[in-house]
Order: sequence, then structure tokens, then C-alpha cells
Amino acid sequence: MVAEIISVGTELLLGNIINTNAAYLAEKCAALGISCYYQTVVGDNEERLTDTVKTALKRSDILILTGGLGPTQDDLTKEVVSRAMKKELVEDQKAKEMLISFFEKRGKEITDNNWKQALVPKDSIVLYNENGTAPGIIIEDGKKCAVLLPGPPGEMKPMFETYVTDYLKKKSPQVISSVTVKICGIGESKVESMIQDMLEKQENPTIAPYAKTGEVHLRVTASDVDEKAAMKRIKPVVKKLKSRFANDIYTTDEKITLEHAVVDLLLSNKLTLCTVESCTGGMLASRLINVPGVSDVFKSGHVTYSNKAKKKITGVKKRTLEKHTAVSAQVAEEMAKGGSLASKADVTVSVTGLAGPDGGTEKKPVGLVYIACYVKGKTTVEEYHFSGNRSKIRENATAAALILMRRCVLEYITEVSFGKKES
Amino acid sequence: MVAEIISVGTELLLGNIINTNAAYLAEKCAALGISCYYQTVVGDNEERLTDTVKTALKRSDILILTGGLGPTQDDLTKEVVSRAMKKELVEDQKAKEMLISFFEKRGKEITDNNWKQALVPKDSIVLYNENGTAPGIIIEDGKKCAVLLPGPPGEMKPMFETYVTDYLKKKSPQVISSVTVKICGIGESKVESMIQDMLEKQENPTIAPYAKTGEVHLRVTASDVDEKAAMKRIKPVVKKLKSRFANDIYTTDEKITLEHAVVDLLLSNKLTLCTVESCTGGMLASRLINVPGVSDVFKSGHVTYSNKAKKKITGVKKRTLEKHTAVSAQVAEEMAKGGSLASKADVTVSVTGLAGPDGGTEKKPVGLVYIACYVKGKTTVEEYHFSGNRSKIRENATAAALILMRRCVLEYITEVSFGKKES
Repeated sequence: MVAEIISVGTELLLGNIINTNAAYLAEKCAALGISCYYQTVVGDNEERLTDTVKTALKRSDILILTGGLGPTQDDLTKEVVSRAMKKELVEDQKAKEMLISFFEKRGKEITDNNWKQALVPKDSIVLYNENGTAPGIIIEDGKKCAVLLPGPPGEMKPMFETYVTDYLKKKSPQVISSVTVKICGIGESKVESMIQDMLEKQENPTIAPYAKTGEVHLRVTASDVDEKAAMKRIKPVVKKLKSRFANDIYTTDEKITLEHAVVDLLLSNKLTLCTVESCTGGMLASRLINVPGVSDVFKSGHVTYSNKAKKKITGVKKRTLEKHTAVSAQVAEEMAKGGSLASKADVTVSVTGLAGPDGGTEKKPVGLVYIACYVKGKTTVEEYHFSGNRSKIRENATAAALILMRRCVLEYITEVSFGKKES
Repeated sequence: MVAEIISVGTELLLGNIINTNAAYLAEKCAALGISCYYQTVVGDNEERLTDTVKTALKRSDILILTGGLGPTQDDLTKEVVSRAMKKELVEDQKAKEMLISFFEKRGKEITDNNWKQALVPKDSIVLYNENGTAPGIIIEDGKKCAVLLPGPPGEMKPMFETYVTDYLKKKSPQVISSVTVKICGIGESKVESMIQDMLEKQENPTIAPYAKTGEVHLRVTASDVDEKAAMKRIKPVVKKLKSRFANDIYTTDEKITLEHAVVDLLLSNKLTLCTVESCTGGMLASRLINVPGVSDVFKSGHVTYSNKAKKKITGVKKRTLEKHTAVSAQVAEEMAKGGSLASKADVTVSVTGLAGPDGGTEKKPVGLVYIACYVKGKTTVEEYHFSGNRSKIRENATAAALILMRRCVLEYITEVSFGKKES
């Protein structure tokens, strides 16, 4: 089963945006055991798009196209692929209703060009779009099929996960299963050196490392006749990884993010949380608030970017600021303690640092960040040096704050249970 | 002059890495006035790479290939392109010397497979690599040419800038310039319908719309003999767009983001800012804090996710919460007023809404968001209905808050200057 990825959009040809869709889809196909030999980018041009689709239909079984499904004249993907696969366009009642309700909800009038988004090729599978106006489509023709998805990643990815994964799974003769072991707080090269022996002799399952900000994910993938057999191959490898990385693994569940794991840890230990942020400026709170159900632990968050706010909201002492400056271990510590005092939260994480581009000195360069974590009376402070631009430094600091929070809460739990046993 | 970009590498086909090279090269070609109609990704496979190169030679004048120049057996690009363009490989003395010195400097021995990197097609232009072992190559054949560059961006980019830009400039008769007109608060289809006449008759300059969350960017691009002449074509079109979209245009500067424009507006009017966020939970503050220099306007930010925090930090009344619930215009208004009272900021924006996935009712569904903006005594509240998942709703609400803030501050400025004129 061979797939081919076609990304449609002049903005890609002009280099205005980076083609993250193709990498996402390629990774998904690989995980499903579907080979992919070509990726093509083509503009919103009828002739060239037609050529590309015809060539792909000759050499591949599955075409996955993104982009060009919108309401404008430029959007041609559906029209071109339908013509190439000899399918007539007909109106889809549900797509039309969803279009109307989409605009109604926003209190906006539907302009005429929008209606064409309710047209779909006859006998096709319609992938209704919960995050935008253009539905996705699967067109089948004998053994060949074309999967048409919208271009914006925020619409394309949920659509792929909701509909396309299951559809493609049925087309693949072997079942591919995978488990992702998510590790935090260790760098990629260190992780790789710790499993060098496993990486060298990998075959089925394979182990693929992916580096993320502050995290390394190890995807263990096996193929076999059914899921049970594939999982039987995966299990001993995951067990081995667990013995090597122990507490640095925060989950083996694909859906759980680091912030999710941290919130779960707080929830299950009935601990409440407060955040006090300077350079990350809300980014840490924002990641935590993205976890549904966080309301049970999150007491309050504060962005104390100015010294005044640091003093007023978290009671950082004027003397501490004068003596050590705002970017110091001492100020981070007072911010964390003060946050818990003000919010009565069990746990408070504070971040203060220099995100740049200006303001760095030889002694305190851009990228220097202090993170403190207060847990029920005990405060831990760590110093970090990050590189990259302002936004990269802030992302790194946010991930580091989550990792430190997890570490401190785990230490607290261990101490408490140890204390209980002792007494 | 038409170019085509071919990226060679199985790691791209597997989605292990994102193809940033193609975007970089595409943008460079566009800036040089060279059209680019196709980008292809193909693996380290002789047959498929040969096919791809032959097809590209038929339809394009310039082939730009990255990757597959290294020392391993998998690296086939030079061999395949030379064969397709009927050029024999010969040893290049300088390339050989650089290879030896590269390894000497690092105190490493040269393994045998490395020598093939000193082979280049006869009569080609060799692009010596200062950052790695594999030289780049330009092969010419009549009017066609192929530019072969190494895959690692750290080697490819400096090589492109040192050699290829000048080489391609001589091939391109025209210069391309562009200006981006950034619009906020109007949907993509509405924007397009407002400039339908301009889109229909566009030629040189062209107008390309790009939709972002809460924004639409119109890129106006012209080509001419030099930059001055190109800009002369662009100016009247930008003027026309300005007359149609007026205040909804927040900038025509490529580098300025919406949050940047909002911070600049506050700065130039000496207004200070406070944020009070419930469902966006710090995302709004985080976008604002990403603007360097925001410290001069940003007083404090608060994440009041719980009702307790709403009451304690911003003084929302218990009665208001009971009567109208947390997601209501009334609570949004009290949050904004209370934020300014507590922080003494001139402007406070508050956001309260249902980001889901749970907690929605028929009367107050998931996606319902209230945003209030307080500016020096006057508070404006707006109701929004967003769709999508939790993260999408929060992103939409954050963009809407920036747009509302901009609108309210602009209204305030107009009133003040009007008031001055009147008195």
C-alpha cells in the first residue's frame, strides 16, 4: 500500500509557510505501515494540479491532499481531483447545514462564494469539519483513493485523527501498533546514549526518538498480524525503557501531555496550584489551563512582569530586588513563597529570567532563567541557561517549570509516604 | 525563468524532520523573481530520484536539489543528476584538499567512503563547503542548470548565500518586491468579497490573501526591473486597500504582529495595561509579553480561572456570579473594571468563556466567550461564539481580545482628540 502526499498552496511555493502538514502526514502514514515515496507541493493552478494528481494516481494507491478546499476562486483541489477521478459534484445537505450554522453562530452573513464548500463528489465519504467551514472528502475509485483535507493544521489534524486514521488502518494488511514513552528533563543525545544498545539491534519493534522542548519521546513501533501480537512485541521493550529511565518517564499514554501529567499528579494528591510568571508571562499558566479539569487544582495565576507587580502581588522585598536584581534565585524564591501565601495554594511555581533580545549583561546574559517551586513549606530553586530567540527561551523556561514542578511534587510525595512509614 | 525544488531524503518521507529547506529556497527564489511551480520530496532511491530529476528537467529551467551529497551509499543525488545531464564525474583537487584538511583539523581519520565527496561532474561549478565535507555543485547544460546543495540547513544556507544568490541573480531579469497589508477583525471570505474586483483583474502586482486566527493578511507582490519600479506598482494598490479597510488594517510592516501593534498603540498613547483571564488562562498575557519592550506598558496579568480568584483578585461580586454565572457579560465587565482598580492600569482586558470540552449547556454552549475591555472609565463588552477544540477556542478568544483592545483604545483616542477639538 503506497501513499503520496500532495500539498496544495501558492503560499507553500512562495516559501511563506513551512510545510508542517507533509511531515505530520508522513509520520502518520509511517506509523500505519503505509509507505510513502513522494511528497509534492503544487500551487493553486488548475493545469499543474491536474498533472500532479494524474501522475500520483498512476504510481500510488492512496493520495493525501491538503489545502485548496476553501471558498475562494483559488481553491481548486476538490474540483481537480473529482474531474481526474471522474466524479460529479453534488450538494451535501449536512455540509450545507453545518456551513449555515457556522456563520449563524458567529452572527455573520454567508457570502456567495462560501456555498461551494457544501459541494462534494458523488458517493464520496464526507469528513465534516468541526473546526472550520470546508469539509474533508475521501473519494474512492476501485483500489485507488484520494483523501482531501483542509490546509490549516488546526482543521487538518483533528480531521485526520477523527476519520482518516481508522479509514487507512483498514487498508493496511499488517497492523502497526506503537507506544510512546515520554521522557522529560533529559536531553536527546543523553537519552540516545542510554539506549544505544537497543537502537543498534532494533528491528521489530523499532524505537524512534523525537525531541520536543524539554522532552524526548521514544516511539516503540511493532507490526504483526493483529494488535495483540504487535503489543506483545512492544511490551518487553517498554518495560526495559521504564527500568532505564524510571521517574523521568512521565507517561506512556500518547494523549497525555506533560502539563496533563503534572495536573493529574496534583489532582491525585489533592494539591492546589498557583503560578507566578515574569519572563514566561502567562505561557506556563496557559499550558496548564489547556488541561480540561484543571479548575480543581488551579487557584490563581499571576503575571508579575514589572518589579512593582512582583512586590505588590507576591510580596517580593524591595531589598531583595535591589541587592540581587529581578533575575535572581532569591527573587524567584520570594515569588514562589509569596504566591502561595497570597493564593493559599499548596504548590507555587515562579519563573523569572531574561528572554531578550535586550537587557543581558556579561554576568546575567540573555537566556538566564531562575525557576522556583514551593511545595507545602519547602522551596527549591534552579538556575537555567537557554539559547535561542525570545520566544524559544520562553518556551524552554515554561517546559522547565513544568518539569521542576513535577520533580518537586514527586519528592514531596515520597517524603510524606516515607515519613508516614517511619512514624 | 522557472525553478523547481527537489528535497532528497528518506527522513523527510518518514516525517522525521520538517522540510524547512524547501521553504527557505522557495522564499529566496521568489525574492529573486524566479517562479517556482513544484517542490518534490523523494527518498534515497535511485529509480525514483532519476524519474523525479528527468521530469523536472523537462518542465523547469533551474533544478535546486538538497540532500544526498554525503559519503554514504545512500547518497545518490550527484550520481543521478550527472547521469541525467550526461556529465562524467572527475576528481576536484581543491575539494579533495579541503576534505583532507577538514578531517585533519578534527584529528579524525578519513574513512574510504568519504573520497567520493571529492568527485564532481566535469565542467561544473564547485561550491566549496566551509561548514561540512560535501561540496555543492552547479551543473549547466545549455539553458538548463541544476544546483546541488547539502541537506543540513547549517551547510546549505551559507552556501546558498555565498554562491547561489549571485549566480541566480544573473539568470533572473526581474526583481520581485512585496508589501503585506495585515487586517484584523474581518473574516477571510468577507475580506475577499470586499476586494473581488481587485482580485479578478490582478496581474502585476498580484494580491494573495492568507488567513490567520482573527486576521487576514493580503500580500501585494510586484515584479519589475528594479525595486523602485516594483514598489511604484505596489503603492497605489496598498493605498486602495487602505481606503477600503481603513482602521481594520493594523500594519503594513511584515515584521509587526497584532500583539506588537497593540503594544505600540498603548506605548505611543502612554496607556498602561492589565489582563484578567479565565478561559484563555494566560495565553493573552503570553502573546503580549512576547513583544520586546512590553514592560513599559504591562502592569500585571491575572489568571482568575476559579470563581474564588475572580472574587478575590478582581472583586467580582458573589451576587453577580450567582445571578449571571461566571460566563456572562456582567462578570466579564466586573473582571475588567476590577482589574484596573487593583492594578491601576489605564486599560484592562478580561476574558471569560467556556473552552470545553465539558461544561456547556443549551443556553451557554461550549465556545461562548465574553470579552470586556475597560479604558479609562469606559467598559465595552462583546459576546463571541467560537468553535473547535479547547485549544482552538482559547486561541480564537485570545486574538479576539487583542482586536477588541485595539478597537477600544482607538475609540478612546478618537474621543479624546475630538473632545479636545470641541472644547
